Amino acid sequence: MTHATARELLEQIVGVGRDARRGGYSRHVFEPAETELRAWFAARARELGLTVETDRNANIWAWWGAPGPGALVTGSHLDSVPGGGAHDGPLGVVSALDAVGRLRESGFTPSRPLAIVVFAEEEGSRFGVACLGSRLPSGAISPGRAGRLTDAAGRTFAEVAAAAGYPDIGRDDVARERIGLFLELHVEQGRALADLGSPIAVGASILEHGRWRIEVHGHGNHAGTTAIPDRRDPMLPSALAVLAARDAAAARSGARATIGRFEPVPGGTNVIASRVTSWLDVRADTPQDTRGIVDDVRRAVEDAAADEGCQVAVSEESYSAEVRFDAALRDRLLAVLADAGFGSVPVLPTGAGHDAGVLAAVVPTAMLFVRNPSGVSHAPEERADDDAIDAGVDALVAAIRGLAGDAGGRLAG
Amino acid sequence: MTHATARELLEQIVGVGRDARRGGYSRHVFEPAETELRAWFAARARELGLTVETDRNANIWAWWGAPGPGALVTGSHLDSVPGGGAHDGPLGVVSALDAVGRLRESGFTPSRPLAIVVFAEEEGSRFGVACLGSRLPSGAISPGRAGRLTDAAGRTFAEVAAAAGYPDIGRDDVARERIGLFLELHVEQGRALADLGSPIAVGASILEHGRWRIEVHGHGNHAGTTAIPDRRDPMLPSALAVLAARDAAAARSGARATIGRFEPVPGGTNVIASRVTSWLDVRADTPQDTRGIVDDVRRAVEDAAADEGCQVAVSEESYSAEVRFDAALRDRLLAVLADAGFGSVPVLPTGAGHDAGVLAAVVPTAMLFVRNPSGVSHAPEERADDDAIDAGVDALVAAIRGLAGDAGGRLAG
Repeated sequence: MTHATARELLEQIVGVGRDARRGGYSRHVFEPAETELRAWFAARARELGLTVETDRNANIWAWWGAPGPGALVTGSHLDSVPGGGAHDGPLGVVSALDAVGRLRESGFTPSRPLAIVVFAEEEGSRFGVACLGSRLPSGAISPGRAGRLTDAAGRTFAEVAAAAGYPDIGRDDVARERIGLFLELHVEQGRALADLGSPIAVGASILEHGRWRIEVHGHGNHAGTTAIPDRRDPMLPSALAVLAARDAAAARSGARATIGRFEPVPGGTNVIASRVTSWLDVRADTPQDTRGIVDDVRRAVEDAAADEGCQVAVSEESYSAEVRFDAALRDRLLAVLADAGFGSVPVLPTGAGHDAGVLAAVVPTAMLFVRNPSGVSHAPEERADDDAIDAGVDALVAAIRGLAGDAGGRLAG
Repeated sequence: MTHATARELLEQIVGVGRDARRGGYSRHVFEPAETELRAWFAARARELGLTVETDRNANIWAWWGAPGPGALVTGSHLDSVPGGGAHDGPLGVVSALDAVGRLRESGFTPSRPLAIVVFAEEEGSRFGVACLGSRLPSGAISPGRAGRLTDAAGRTFAEVAAAAGYPDIGRDDVARERIGLFLELHVEQGRALADLGSPIAVGASILEHGRWRIEVHGHGNHAGTTAIPDRRDPMLPSALAVLAARDAAAARSGARATIGRFEPVPGGTNVIASRVTSWLDVRADTPQDTRGIVDDVRRAVEDAAADEGCQVAVSEESYSAEVRFDAALRDRLLAVLADAGFGSVPVLPTGAGHDAGVLAAVVPTAMLFVRNPSGVSHAPEERADDDAIDAGVDALVAAIRGLAGDAGGRLAG
């Protein structure tokens, strides 16, 4: 039996977790669609002859050979944002399965341990903090704080993870020490590659980014019977936060600030909200710009809240400094790709966060981006054309040969 | 066995449909909590010896004597806004049960048919249009339009009603013609009564009111990778709608405009929304003011959408002209209450919509308001003190004696 290609694997999961209301996919950690994808991945990996394990933080590892240390690890995630595209996450997983299948069929034997990983809750769509699967083992978030995060139904991550069979989330030195190098292939999430005429790129850096939660408390009441002067409506300061975020980002070159999640409670048409929670996502070139944007928004909301008789709390949910991927690994990867006939592969920064960005703090890490002609991501219109998907798998095969073949030992992490 | 009092009946349902996240109650039509309340009402009415029927539109009628025509009908609703109070709706239902229980025990025999009614989907919390239970039978909404209304999960009212056993919603002349007079007792939803020193009031009028849906379409994309100049973010025009609604209402004496329901799709932290739907609730003294507010908001949103490259659609979900309750019935009710020792009962307008407001177009209708010391409604802090609840039941007993006793025939509708 020949192995399934990346494109065939994507086709197998095309019906899993479709979101009829938003379009695209909603595959949130430990919900039925994501659970189905986890089982599907384990089955595909076992068919390739890999040994499948899960760690205490619900990450899935499929090993070729005995587990680490010093392994070359590749992979990505299977969860999505609400109404996300088909490739953000899954493309890195299916490309890894395809690449390993090809290498096994070709008789290649890795000179170091090799694993495909699926990280849990990369998007933070259910519990608010992205990359829990890589933050927890590397100590970038404490198990106490991660465990107390809640989903929209008010259930904690600790409770939901325990119910799914992971009662003991936390730092995981064993898992971390097995990783010698981490290489994540991911669909590109902007327009940069589409304009450069290359199907793939190598990652240079990840923009500094963070998430802040803005909670405005007012006074819930009847929309028809409460006179305007008697109102303490948290929608007003919260609406100003949306406008202030845009103004603050537009005033700083290259910066981005977004409020895309905005939840009035109770959320009835004929009800003045009692509180509104909104989430501010900020990315910028410098810490000064990031902090400046958050401060601008905070000030606008606080001023408006004082006028309206509301209370405001702004809390940092996550903050990641700029990540520059390991320069030696990047140069080695570029050389391997050049040897494999890819010519001069572009090196690009990205504004998107990734598990690779979290792991870069503890192990040498690299990223491969696959062209997205729409330039759109986190939306149903996200795309990757067949030729670019094939090129991504070719690049991953070349990278594994180069980093875990006979010559790969030189870079053991 | 003596019958249960209004306060005892409220105590029986104190645990049904509690909303842990919002506080208060979420009892939406045909969802489990509301379904439980419907069955509970039918059981309580049967215990009083009443005959229970449901009509084609899922309204429940409990008859004392043979059904109509020319009946005195009293009652209210059991559904709630999301996170609503304990009294909005249920108080009118339990007071009617208590009043009928007292009258039956006292040996009173009505001189005309008498019914307690529970109207379905009064708040419009699930399907967006309020008072479907009274609009449908009286022809104030077509069954086609009502049937196509959808809930948050995208299910239509027709589909959900059919699944609940009501496959044939629509105009109901039989139900309507049975009503000779309609009297709705309701918790007061503002501060007016609390300041007047009276436990009850009689309704004068309902402010003109309407709901408009504002849908802004933009372009969903990644919050980290999409540069500010490339964005078409529907949150910006939608946030401006919130501010414009406040400004437009504040500029018109006595007017109220509220956006309390606001739904970005997909609603992810790291996602630029692809569309935002918000609902504008407007109440004002004159049609000019109502239309003026809607026009102001529409203009603000359209201007902002043009700047942002978004599309806007504003649609009217419901519109109700000012209702003045039947003057003859109101005067008769005031006289009956004065005879029963209530003295000079205040006559108040309200900004809240009610089934009584819909029915006022087709039958003589009156309302009794019960004092709410918090002045808060559509929120968990809504209150009615024991003495005011008791006074409301006393008033309802007096009203039924006066309107359906030996002297009541004079007012047969």
